[in-house]
Amino acid sequence: MAVTLAALVARFGGELVGDGAVTVRQVAPLDRAGPDEIGFVSQARYLAQLSNTRAGAVILPPEARDATERPRILTPNPYLYFARVSALLNPPPRPPAGVHPAATVAADASIAADASIGPGAVIGAGASVGARSVIGPNCVIGDGARIGADCLLHANVTVYHQCEIGDRAILHAGCVIGADGFGFAPDGERWEKIPQIGRVRIGDDVEVGACTTIDRGALEDTVIEAGVKLDNLIQVAHNVTIGAHSAIAACTGIAGSARIGRHCTIGGAAMIFGHIEIADNTRISTNTLITKSLPKAGTYTSALPFSEHEVWQKNAVHMRNLDKLVKRIKALEQKLGELEKP
Amino acid sequence: MAVTLAALVARFGGELVGDGAVTVRQVAPLDRAGPDEIGFVSQARYLAQLSNTRAGAVILPPEARDATERPRILTPNPYLYFARVSALLNPPPRPPAGVHPAATVAADASIAADASIGPGAVIGAGASVGARSVIGPNCVIGDGARIGADCLLHANVTVYHQCEIGDRAILHAGCVIGADGFGFAPDGERWEKIPQIGRVRIGDDVEVGACTTIDRGALEDTVIEAGVKLDNLIQVAHNVTIGAHSAIAACTGIAGSARIGRHCTIGGAAMIFGHIEIADNTRISTNTLITKSLPKAGTYTSALPFSEHEVWQKNAVHMRNLDKLVKRIKALEQKLGELEKP
Amino acid sequence: MAVTLAALVARFGGELVGDGAVTVRQVAPLDRAGPDEIGFVSQARYLAQLSNTRAGAVILPPEARDATERPRILTPNPYLYFARVSALLNPPPRPPAGVHPAATVAADASIAADASIGPGAVIGAGASVGARSVIGPNCVIGDGARIGADCLLHANVTVYHQCEIGDRAILHAGCVIGADGFGFAPDGERWEKIPQIGRVRIGDDVEVGACTTIDRGALEDTVIEAGVKLDNLIQVAHNVTIGAHSAIAACTGIAGSARIGRHCTIGGAAMIFGHIEIADNTRISTNTLITKSLPKAGTYTSALPFSEHEVWQKNAVHMRNLDKLVKRIKALEQKLGELEKP
Repeated sequence: MAVTLAALVARFGGELVGDGAVTVRQVAPLDRAGPDEIGFVSQARYLAQLSNTRAGAVILPPEARDATERPRILTPNPYLYFARVSALLNPPPRPPAGVHPAATVAADASIAADASIGPGAVIGAGASVGARSVIGPNCVIGDGARIGADCLLHANVTVYHQCEIGDRAILHAGCVIGADGFGFAPDGERWEKIPQIGRVRIGDDVEVGACTTIDRGALEDTVIEAGVKLDNLIQVAHNVTIGAHSAIAACTGIAGSARIGRHCTIGGAAMIFGHIEIADNTRISTNTLITKSLPKAGTYTSALPFSEHEVWQKNAVHMRNLDKLVKRIKALEQKLGELEKP
Repeated sequence: MAVTLAALVARFGGELVGDGAVTVRQVAPLDRAGPDEIGFVSQARYLAQLSNTRAGAVILPPEARDATERPRILTPNPYLYFARVSALLNPPPRPPAGVHPAATVAADASIAADASIGPGAVIGAGASVGARSVIGPNCVIGDGARIGADCLLHANVTVYHQCEIGDRAILHAGCVIGADGFGFAPDGERWEKIPQIGRVRIGDDVEVGACTTIDRGALEDTVIEAGVKLDNLIQVAHNVTIGAHSAIAACTGIAGSARIGRHCTIGGAAMIFGHIEIADNTRISTNTLITKSLPKAGTYTSALPFSEHEVWQKNAVHMRNLDKLVKRIKALEQKLGELEKP
Repeated sequence: MAVTLAALVARFGGELVGDGAVTVRQVAPLDRAGPDEIGFVSQARYLAQLSNTRAGAVILPPEARDATERPRILTPNPYLYFARVSALLNPPPRPPAGVHPAATVAADASIAADASIGPGAVIGAGASVGARSVIGPNCVIGDGARIGADCLLHANVTVYHQCEIGDRAILHAGCVIGADGFGFAPDGERWEKIPQIGRVRIGDDVEVGACTTIDRGALEDTVIEAGVKLDNLIQVAHNVTIGAHSAIAACTGIAGSARIGRHCTIGGAAMIFGHIEIADNTRISTNTLITKSLPKAGTYTSALPFSEHEVWQKNAVHMRNLDKLVKRIKALEQKLGELEKP
């Protein structure tokens, strides 16, 4: 696919400087870009990258108008512009519409005529798949589950019975939507299973990473609001709510009934306790454990700095005696106070 | 499905107070329950929830007999009772018995006549599936593997060759039982694979969460005893033993040859070193790293409290200098001792 | 299968002491080995295990030549020798060559005549599978993906479009190669997806654990070099490079564009920041967070020692006040200095 700079500006806005007839076929990092590729610089401090590039065109912030002679598009948010150009040049692969003969679709499932159901996919009784949605090979959609329009489910995704996915969702391979929450009542020395009768409801424009698991609710639903982005290998327990447009990095765990606000960002391998609430716009750092509600937006951290092993061992052992250390300091302060008395 | 309170008491015990002919169709939290639903209060401190409920009936501890006028069932363990009522009202969906035409079953596999093998499932040579067990769509059961009676394998589960699963197991989507343990012998600068010739043996009444992985043993077996409950995204390495009725929350990792006792509870994202033993009835907190054996039951923790990021940064940096701090305190104590000498 | 000690020495080297006609059929730990099994002792300090063994033969280091009367093979690296004997006696199960009738293979895919494509497997357009490779049941190989020779893909593996896997790879069930990296540009209060147009390229002799996820690159490729061993449930983000023969334990996460050197070993549940470089031969401990580049090989740690819960609580709370503690120590030092002045 090829597109002229003039066509890009007509479609996405921005100010064109230079020859609008220049054609680009792909996006690329500046140091690797060739004459039919377009790159970008997001911030003034990276402008040095322009000096050696062979890119056919570049996307720049307005204040960098004169930083190069090359054909360029000026826009206040070059990274976002670049994303849109890339999406135009790299449409996701779309298998042909229709149900593959090697798929198994329940007689009463409702499949949009222009949806694509891949080989080996299994669609349960009463389930529905919306317009233009793609259900990848070997996906399993449970009874009564609903997949919206324009969704892309990659291979081997599992959506349990009755769960709902909004429009334009992207679910990556191996993710599991709607498995039972971890709920058991103690019965003497054994555990009795609490049936998990809630569902998972996922809003529009959500992306879920590979092997991420989102459990169904115990009595009410687990809710992922619109625009949420979840990376790989994340655990979302039953009855969690994740507010709209929050983004969560890989390996994070969120315990039952936690309520994450809107527009939050959570670093990788964070762990969030259950039954707590996190304010909108909160940022949680990588490897941080959140043990109580955060009613105030801010950035929260409990990640430890590493050291060389021997150094670390010497220091870490004192963690076990901090309380004694504090008492020793207090004693010193008292004694010194005595000595200083006239 | 509908059931009278009298029928519930006949089945599960407890003392009925009020009209036994009242019918309930579903369980619900008290604040959402309607006239044909039953809720519960587990502890006296939650009794206030009764004041506004519209639930048709409630399950209460005996000491709360007079806390409401509503029809009620008194029982010492309302949560457990609620679980049983819910299980009665919400039987797990049961696909029809028989082998789906889109399944692939080896000629010499042994499938109980009333078992259900879903579309896309693959059952290997010499494998067996017990009475009334359900093998979900696209599950793969390896050669010689044995699945007990009354098991429920959700979609896309993998059980490797020769592994054994007891009766009444529930395996959630994407879990992997019996992949090779992580064993390699160094050979100069490369690694030589150690064949993993043990199996995984799972007892009765075990539940395994979505995308949880349990590796087969190197020489002997990895063993999950009866009644163990594993949440999602847990790693169980080769030759681990998990004692009966232990429950382990999501994102936890257990390294090779660790022996977890019976009736242990392990919080999320805990990490357990290999080749250690943990006593029965031990509790391990969320995010805790256990580096050596715990011969004595107790609760063990190494999870750090979080702070606002700037506060945390100021404090955490001292972790790298704790040893020096301790030396400074020691020096102060000596000097003070000198000063205090007469 | 059975093999004489003489045949083993002819094949793998080492010095035979005792009857070369002795036949062994399996490897086993010394305490369980029977007369037709062979065990090993890797180090002098474990030689006591020889006293009670019933093993038909043992593999020993040369200096242990006289530690037993049993038939024995002397070799400088008994563990490696044992691995090779085990591999000989336990060849991985090999399904028959050919495409199973229940597989779905694109017309233009290139499948080696002696490769094995299992039931339910799906091979995309233009994909290729090399000589003698095994694609397990329900695996999905995307369009244009390339699988080398002698690979073993267990069940339910997903390899996305255009990704490349070298020769002799072992990919365990549920692993996902080539899902989109986690890349989004902020657009006001929503996120715009950055198309991930790079691939994953995996070298020869790589093993990938169950449910491990390796994301495709954003613009350039994610690269796993030859001989790398990845355990289960590991997250490898977009544009990461992992150097040859590095080994990484379960539950570890590696953020985008990190460069791990060659021959590194990384303990379980480590977290590696993005855009950093780690020197060859570096060792990172379990549960350690690496926040910046490590230009010098060494062992690095930030894992905390655990305590009994009550003890831990008392100590950990001071982490929040370390900076204040340090100031108190400084004040004490100053005051003492004043007092000590003549």
